Amino acid sequence: MAVGLGPLPTLHPVAGFELGIASAGIKRPGRKDVVVMRCAEGSRVAAVTTTNAFCAAPVLVTRERVQGDVRYLLTNTGNANAGTGAEGLANARRTCAALAGLTGVPETAILPFSTGVIGEPLPVEKIESALQAALDDLAPEHWAEAATGIMTTDTLPKGASRQFRHAGETITVTGISKGAGMIRPNMATMLGYIATDAKVARDVLQNLVLDAANKSFNRITIDGDTSTNDCCLLIATGQTNLAEITEASGELYTQLRQAVFEVCMEVAQAIVRDGEGATKFVTVQVNGGGNHQECLDVGYAVAHSPLIKTALFASDPNWGRILAAVGYAGVPDLDVSKIDVFLGDVCIASQGGRAASYTEAQGAAVMQQEEISIRIELGRGTCSETIWTTDLSHEYVRINAEYRS
Amino acid sequence: MAVGLGPLPTLHPVAGFELGIASAGIKRPGRKDVVVMRCAEGSRVAAVTTTNAFCAAPVLVTRERVQGDVRYLLTNTGNANAGTGAEGLANARRTCAALAGLTGVPETAILPFSTGVIGEPLPVEKIESALQAALDDLAPEHWAEAATGIMTTDTLPKGASRQFRHAGETITVTGISKGAGMIRPNMATMLGYIATDAKVARDVLQNLVLDAANKSFNRITIDGDTSTNDCCLLIATGQTNLAEITEASGELYTQLRQAVFEVCMEVAQAIVRDGEGATKFVTVQVNGGGNHQECLDVGYAVAHSPLIKTALFASDPNWGRILAAVGYAGVPDLDVSKIDVFLGDVCIASQGGRAASYTEAQGAAVMQQEEISIRIELGRGTCSETIWTTDLSHEYVRINAEYRS
Repeated sequence: MAVGLGPLPTLHPVAGFELGIASAGIKRPGRKDVVVMRCAEGSRVAAVTTTNAFCAAPVLVTRERVQGDVRYLLTNTGNANAGTGAEGLANARRTCAALAGLTGVPETAILPFSTGVIGEPLPVEKIESALQAALDDLAPEHWAEAATGIMTTDTLPKGASRQFRHAGETITVTGISKGAGMIRPNMATMLGYIATDAKVARDVLQNLVLDAANKSFNRITIDGDTSTNDCCLLIATGQTNLAEITEASGELYTQLRQAVFEVCMEVAQAIVRDGEGATKFVTVQVNGGGNHQECLDVGYAVAHSPLIKTALFASDPNWGRILAAVGYAGVPDLDVSKIDVFLGDVCIASQGGRAASYTEAQGAAVMQQEEISIRIELGRGTCSETIWTTDLSHEYVRINAEYRS
Repeated sequence: MAVGLGPLPTLHPVAGFELGIASAGIKRPGRKDVVVMRCAEGSRVAAVTTTNAFCAAPVLVTRERVQGDVRYLLTNTGNANAGTGAEGLANARRTCAALAGLTGVPETAILPFSTGVIGEPLPVEKIESALQAALDDLAPEHWAEAATGIMTTDTLPKGASRQFRHAGETITVTGISKGAGMIRPNMATMLGYIATDAKVARDVLQNLVLDAANKSFNRITIDGDTSTNDCCLLIATGQTNLAEITEASGELYTQLRQAVFEVCMEVAQAIVRDGEGATKFVTVQVNGGGNHQECLDVGYAVAHSPLIKTALFASDPNWGRILAAVGYAGVPDLDVSKIDVFLGDVCIASQGGRAASYTEAQGAAVMQQEEISIRIELGRGTCSETIWTTDLSHEYVRINAEYRS
C-alpha cells in the first residue's frame, strides 16, 4: 500500500559505522529482529527522544548515556519495552550488559532501542542469544539489511543517502528509519539512525539533529499518536581527514547541514508513504499565519481530522470538511473571510466560501492523484508550516484492529 | 449499529410547543427533511452555538435573534448552509421570511437551523415549498416525528423526557437531538432542542442550557471534528401556572435543573450510541487531576486516539495504547509512577506499568462488552472529568468515505 515508495536507494557505507542483524525470534521464529550497530572509537552521537511522559525504558537508558562515549547501538523489534516499569529498565540494562560482555566495551557505551508491542516484558534471553550472530554480521555495507531488521508494521524498508565533496574528500550521510503507525513525533520520532563520517563538534551535532528532526520527523503524522519509543540519532564517526566541523566551518557546515536535512526528510516522508493503510501521500501547507504555532494548529487539525482523511481515501473533494477543521483549530480571532484553500493548484474555497471558479470536476481530478497537496492561506501574516500525512483507509482499521501492536 | 439505543422513549408533549414535519426533497424525494417548531407567545429561548470559526449562516442568524421574541424554529436537513458566505446568509434569512409570510409573525421571531452537507447552496425554493405542509402538521404530540425529521446519518431518532411535580403542577422537559459524525461539541452541540412548559427567567434559562450542555453535549466525542452547525436550544414556554423560576426558587429550580440535565445527558449519550459505525459505547473517566483541564486533556487524548479506538473495535485490551495516549496528552510534569488505569473494574496498569494482578483474560472479558469504561487515576489532585465516545470501525470509514456529508 506504500504511496510512491520504491525499493531502497543506494545507501552509501559510512566509514567507521557497521551494522549487523540477527534473529532472536521475538515475535516469529526466523524473523530478523535484532540489529547491532558499531561506531568507531571517537564517534559522537546526538539524539532527540520522545516527549511522551510514558517513555520506554530503553529511551531512559539512552538519554543517560548518549552524552558519553558510545560504541554500540542495540535495537530489537517485536517488543517496545514500554510501560514495563522498573523491571523494564533492568531488562534494557541487561541486554546492554550482555553485549558489553561480548565486545569488551563498557556497558555505558551501549545504547538500547526497542520497538513493538507496549507493555509486554522484554524477552531478554532471546535477545542475548542473538547478539553474537549480529556481531558476526557487522559490516559497513549492511544498511539495507538493518533497514529491514528494524521494521515492525512497515511494509517497506526506509533509507536515504547523500554524498558531497569538500577539499578533495567525500563526505557521506546515510540514514534509515522505521515507523508506520503511532506516528505523531513530538521533538523526536519513531526510530531513525543517521550516520556521517564527518567529524562534528558535539554541540553542532546536537543542533543538527534537533533542527533536522524538527523540520522533518516532527512535521509528519499518521494517526496523531505519539509513540513511547521515538528516538532519532545522528552519529558522526569522524573518519574523514577534514577538521572538526563547527558552525564556523562555512560551506562545509552548510553542506553537511543540508545533507543531514535531506536524509532526515527523505526517511521521514518514507514513513508517511508507508503509513498504515495509506493510499495517499498528503502535504498540508499552511501559509499566511501570524505565527508558526497557529500554522501548526491548523495543519494538524486538517491532518488529524478523520472526516478529511476518509474523504481523501475516497478521493472525494469534500472541501467543506477542510473549512470545518480550519475553523475548529483554535486560532484566535480567525477571520474566515480572508481564508483561501487550494487543492493542488485548484482554488476550492476563497474568502471563506466556495470559490466562484471552482467546479467539482476540478477537485475530483486532484483527489484522484496519489500525492495530494492541501494549501491553506490564512491571510494573517507571513509564517508558514508544512505537515505530511496520509488518508484513513479500511486498511488502517484492519491493521490496528487485527494486530496487537 | 447503535449501541444500547432502543426505540424512542415516551416523549411527553410540552404545553405551548408544537412540532410539524414535511418533505422538501432536499437530498431524496419524499424524505422528511423540514421541521417547523412553534413556541407559544411569551416563550423564552436560550442557545449555545458552535465555537467553530466557520460557523454556518443559520447559526449567525440564530445568534442575532435568540435574545428577542422567538415564535418558530425552522430546521432543514440535507444541507448545512455552511461555508456559503454572504449568499448563505441571505438564503437563511429568505427561508425565515417565507415562514414569516405564512404565519404573520415578524421575520426576526424565526430561528433557522440547517444540517447536512457543507458548502452547497441552500435549496431555498424546495424548503419554501414545504413550509405550509409543515405548518399544517404542527401538533404537541409530534416530538417523535420531529426527532426523525432532523436525522442525517443518524440510524435512530434520539429523544428523552422527564416530568416532575411541584405544588400540584406537572412540569415537563422533553428534548430531541441529532448527530452521528463530525461530533466534538465545543460549548455547543450538533442539533438539540429541549423544551419545557415551565416559566423561566431569561438569565436562568441561559445558565441552565450552558451548564447542562457543558456537562453532556460538551463531553461527548465521536471523531473529534467540531461541526460548523452545532446548536443546542432550551425553550421555556411558560405555560404552567407556577411563578417564574429563578435561582432563588429553591426546590423547583433544583428539580428543573436536574430534569434539563437528565434530558440533555440522555440525548447527548444517544448521539454517541448512534455514532457513525459505533460498535462500543465508551466512558472515559479521568480522576485525580490537578485541575479540570488536564483531566479533559487526558480524556480527549484517549477518546481521540485512533489506535485505542481500533483496539476497542477489535475488543483488544491493548492497555499499552492507553498509557501512550495518557503520556502524550500534554499534562505538565506527569509522574507516570502514580498512574493507575482500570478497564471496567479491572486494574490493568498500576504505577505506570502492567498491574501485577492483571491477566489478559480479565481485560478481554471487559472488552467483549458493548459498554466499556476506561478509568484513569492520575494521582495528582481531586478533579474529575468524564467523556463519552465510540470505537473506530470499518463502518466509520465506509460511511465517511462513501457518502458526502
